[in-house]
Amino acid sequence: MIERIAILGTGLLGTSAGLALRAAGFGGTITGWNRGAEGGQAALAMGAVDALAGDALQAAREGQVVVLAVPIYATLDWMEQLSGVLGPEHLVTDVGSTKAQITAAAGRLYNTPERAGFLPGHPMAGKERGGAALGDANLFRGAVWLFTDDPSWERSPQSAALAQGWREWVAAMGSKTIDIDAARHDELVGWVSHLPQFVATALSALLEEEVGDAPELKDVGGRALREMTRLGASPYSMWRDIAYTNTETVQAALHALEQRLAHLRENLRTPALRDEFEQANRFRRE
Amino acid sequence: MIERIAILGTGLLGTSAGLALRAAGFGGTITGWNRGAEGGQAALAMGAVDALAGDALQAAREGQVVVLAVPIYATLDWMEQLSGVLGPEHLVTDVGSTKAQITAAAGRLYNTPERAGFLPGHPMAGKERGGAALGDANLFRGAVWLFTDDPSWERSPQSAALAQGWREWVAAMGSKTIDIDAARHDELVGWVSHLPQFVATALSALLEEEVGDAPELKDVGGRALREMTRLGASPYSMWRDIAYTNTETVQAALHALEQRLAHLRENLRTPALRDEFEQANRFRRE
Repeated sequence: MIERIAILGTGLLGTSAGLALRAAGFGGTITGWNRGAEGGQAALAMGAVDALAGDALQAAREGQVVVLAVPIYATLDWMEQLSGVLGPEHLVTDVGSTKAQITAAAGRLYNTPERAGFLPGHPMAGKERGGAALGDANLFRGAVWLFTDDPSWERSPQSAALAQGWREWVAAMGSKTIDIDAARHDELVGWVSHLPQFVATALSALLEEEVGDAPELKDVGGRALREMTRLGASPYSMWRDIAYTNTETVQAALHALEQRLAHLRENLRTPALRDEFEQANRFRRE
Repeated sequence: MIERIAILGTGLLGTSAGLALRAAGFGGTITGWNRGAEGGQAALAMGAVDALAGDALQAAREGQVVVLAVPIYATLDWMEQLSGVLGPEHLVTDVGSTKAQITAAAGRLYNTPERAGFLPGHPMAGKERGGAALGDANLFRGAVWLFTDDPSWERSPQSAALAQGWREWVAAMGSKTIDIDAARHDELVGWVSHLPQFVATALSALLEEEVGDAPELKDVGGRALREMTRLGASPYSMWRDIAYTNTETVQAALHALEQRLAHLRENLRTPALRDEFEQANRFRRE
């Protein structure tokens, strides 16, 4: 039923979505647009999109489903612009990592019978480095793809059908879809996704200061060190918007971890250390 | 030249050493001893050892090289006991994760022309769960194996030759050997190995408290969460001795990370966040 998709932003997620749609058998057209020429050309060369658009608004108008695959504030900007040019025959969706502001904008600018529909989405997939060149048809396989749809929205029949169609393609790309309230989403990912990222950043930055001048010694840490600092390579450009739009939860999570580390530090030689290990073991029980 | 090896402790590391020696072409005998019968039987069944000894001291006496593959305080206990029954025709080595106390004991109890030699060693390899059943002939492949040998020791010619022979088998198992001062070793691994472990433990324990009652939500975190908490499964039984024998460095490292996390928390919306990400990026540059 979906025959024309426009992907605005052919970075890692946009390019991977195009490749995954093709791998899942999507036979319609996929038009891409990217702010930088290089990322667009890479996505085109990889076959993630059939054509590149010079004008994003034009590409969006010609698509049925518009996928916003850009950072959060850029997503909010596009939502403003697109709401003026799209109608009830369109569905817009996104892949942004925080959902409260985007979902609020979706309620304000979209999702009435006369307007385009907007389905706020968030695939829990990524890599520590971005860019079209790392695009991967299997990126979403086995991942959870969260939607923060609001049951009170009254979409047009066309955009409602497109939203259902997009959910089916997400499942076809190999993801498990879960519906969740937007505020609960931001709180949850603040703990299980944003906290781990900021911990990896702080740990990597600290170790760069402590042992960065002896690169051969990084080998000493082995797999454990590599895993615990892999996300240290994540770009500020992506995480700035997350830090800005989920500040309170991330602050609470970081503060709780600081206290937990202090507790552990003060109990390296007491039985409380056993309790911490056993509590941690429970989190990792099969 | 080494024809008889005794492995005391057939847990993950001892069993893996036996399997790796065989895979590397060691044709001599390997005798195992384990405190628990089950672990010994598992190592025997896997072919990591040729035979199980009922008496550890007897097994050590009959071996040329004795590998201590037990926790740190157990290693120190065995060092005391074995120093009384072994002579200059023996070499003892170990795989303990902190080296200051073990290396001091090696200088006090071993490494004179009349006594057995002791080569303190530490393979930077492991898994988040222990036990013979997880033994792996490839565990040491690509890993760094640290030695905290003291150049001032005067070993007997026999034990010196056995130490050289053991180093060659370690290389044959696929590890890169590095010599390092024992105090520097403990400081270094405090930062690149122990700190990541305690961070993973604290993070896992915290998340168990926050989201542990909703196991399906762990999926939401994806690969990043799995990697950042994998070490949360590590057993207290092994880490207790590390916490006890490297307390000061681990405390300093934890305290530094607490401060770094607080700095990050206070700067989620300032340009200092960019500096932290860029510093972290440098640690992970290729």
